[in-house]
Amino acid sequence: MARQATAIKPIRLADVAKAAGVSHGTASNVFSHPEIVREEVRERVKAAADALGYTGPDPKGRLLRAGKVNAIGVATAQPLSYFFDDPFARVVMSGISEICDATGAGLSLVSAINGEHLAWNIQSALVDGFIVFCVEGNWQPVKLTRERKLPFVVLDFAFDEGATSAIGVDNRAGAKLAAEHLLAFGHRRFGILALHFAEGSTGPVTAARAQGATYSGTRDRLTGYLEALSHAGIDAGSVPIYETGNDVPTVHASLNYMFDRPQPPTALLAMSDRIAMIAIDWLKERGLSVPGDVSIIGFDGVPESARCEPPLTTIAQPIIEMGRRAARAILDPSDALRRQELPFELIVRTSAAAPR
Amino acid sequence: MARQATAIKPIRLADVAKAAGVSHGTASNVFSHPEIVREEVRERVKAAADALGYTGPDPKGRLLRAGKVNAIGVATAQPLSYFFDDPFARVVMSGISEICDATGAGLSLVSAINGEHLAWNIQSALVDGFIVFCVEGNWQPVKLTRERKLPFVVLDFAFDEGATSAIGVDNRAGAKLAAEHLLAFGHRRFGILALHFAEGSTGPVTAARAQGATYSGTRDRLTGYLEALSHAGIDAGSVPIYETGNDVPTVHASLNYMFDRPQPPTALLAMSDRIAMIAIDWLKERGLSVPGDVSIIGFDGVPESARCEPPLTTIAQPIIEMGRRAARAILDPSDALRRQELPFELIVRTSAAAPR
Repeated sequence: MARQATAIKPIRLADVAKAAGVSHGTASNVFSHPEIVREEVRERVKAAADALGYTGPDPKGRLLRAGKVNAIGVATAQPLSYFFDDPFARVVMSGISEICDATGAGLSLVSAINGEHLAWNIQSALVDGFIVFCVEGNWQPVKLTRERKLPFVVLDFAFDEGATSAIGVDNRAGAKLAAEHLLAFGHRRFGILALHFAEGSTGPVTAARAQGATYSGTRDRLTGYLEALSHAGIDAGSVPIYETGNDVPTVHASLNYMFDRPQPPTALLAMSDRIAMIAIDWLKERGLSVPGDVSIIGFDGVPESARCEPPLTTIAQPIIEMGRRAARAILDPSDALRRQELPFELIVRTSAAAPR
Repeated sequence: MARQATAIKPIRLADVAKAAGVSHGTASNVFSHPEIVREEVRERVKAAADALGYTGPDPKGRLLRAGKVNAIGVATAQPLSYFFDDPFARVVMSGISEICDATGAGLSLVSAINGEHLAWNIQSALVDGFIVFCVEGNWQPVKLTRERKLPFVVLDFAFDEGATSAIGVDNRAGAKLAAEHLLAFGHRRFGILALHFAEGSTGPVTAARAQGATYSGTRDRLTGYLEALSHAGIDAGSVPIYETGNDVPTVHASLNYMFDRPQPPTALLAMSDRIAMIAIDWLKERGLSVPGDVSIIGFDGVPESARCEPPLTTIAQPIIEMGRRAARAILDPSDALRRQELPFELIVRTSAAAPR
């Protein structure tokens, strides 16, 4: 910082304004809001700044004046690599990026996995608000975000007290439609590959326990599945439910649990496309054909779901639009609805068919 | 900001320190460097802060004291969506994220496509340094980054004056190996699908003009291709070279240029896997088989290259390690080498074979 100080201090914005023959305010705008300054003036001030070796205002000084910083923060309970590796997260981020690119906003990513630094990362993030990914309950990042008194948006209906907006689909209705699609083929033996019902928990769960889930998104999906199965006369209590993460080890564990039983399922309900795609690979390795031996339906509609073999039948959410709306809700909170329910659709491909 | 001010000003850190019975410095450490404070003390101070409704120091105030902000900036000439959509960028970002997650650092992304806001975004980004993606020359983001007097790292050997470190592979040797692999199958008619030789330029180019490229990475790859072809007695001047972006329209234009000629190539040298994968889809749509009618070899070794049909033969860079090293070079510049050349390897799959 010392080098920066010596580089910046000697020449002040006032010197540049004087040299360019403009007011201090105009010179300041050239650096902080160039879009409102006429090009010729902008060029003249920039030329004067270059001539004097003025390298722009010190961002730390700028902050004390700037109300809006023109940047969006995104916080997740996952490692930062989640934003670049996870198919669902990547599409949400593309939607957020679109709005940032259109408005020239920056993007700051914060992860909660390194708890030691979390408070500093969230408290110091130079952003106009936070988009919080698929979390709820009095979870530390949400708590810290709320304390910043900045707008924050939760995705996938993990609706949290204090959130400016919550954006997602009707998970219960979407899951119901997924189960009805498999029931229509005549399946009677189901297995449910569920996403976390609470932070970090995995393993077999009973429908009763799952109903007490802290995550409303996954709880609603389960409710939708079980409603459809019950309507079809299937005893919900007999359907194996296994709580997984969106990762290979826990999904493999769930499949071992499902298929080591005397009457393995012929139809799998997966709460994410990622889970379904990991399951398809596992089934093929076991010599089980999809959909010949086992039908499977996903949830999300990520681009990869169209390219896997067989292409995945799934409940598609408008993921990119969820990202766009979340970004708009941060950049213009006055414009944000508290709860935005978006439409979902059933995309029928070839991973689900009649049982043999 | 007003609401935040009223929420924070009444209770000062001194009040919390007093209530917790610790020194002001210790109370401060609990919020800025919790890792150095004993847990019981940390808990006591946090409890006192909660009781008083103290929500942590004002980040803007913190900035004036903090030397390091524990965050990495990444700047690109592309839209921000590039970081989430482009196969190469995603792997680099995974490597950067790994180091951020290990050190608890945040990640700030800046795009240059919205020029109006670029200066503010780079000048105000709260980071300890910048990783600049695949650009060189006196390009605005590099210029602004240099003006910040912060460490900055350029990837893929787009080595720029003032960069702390430049990280990549020997592009010339890698490209030479790619061409030699296709020559060994007996191919004589080549086409080169080149990445930009200068910012934004596309279209057919002569070898001579390409040698004057401003981007050393792509220039070196071209040099390697042409060296191998010349050694095999092929007239470099006769080889069609088309400059593309990593996007469908420009790659399709390059293929129309290659295949609308009387003697179309039987072997394509692609400067990125993305270009090669777009080309494979185009060729299949035209009813041309790969490698039956046309062999193709890529460059990068992105994960997708193993999953396309046919699987792509390519020159693999250690992309994730490039990201890791770039991140380390920002967080610990003293540890960074100015130029880090990493090993590449030829991955032989099935997109290249003998011509019919």
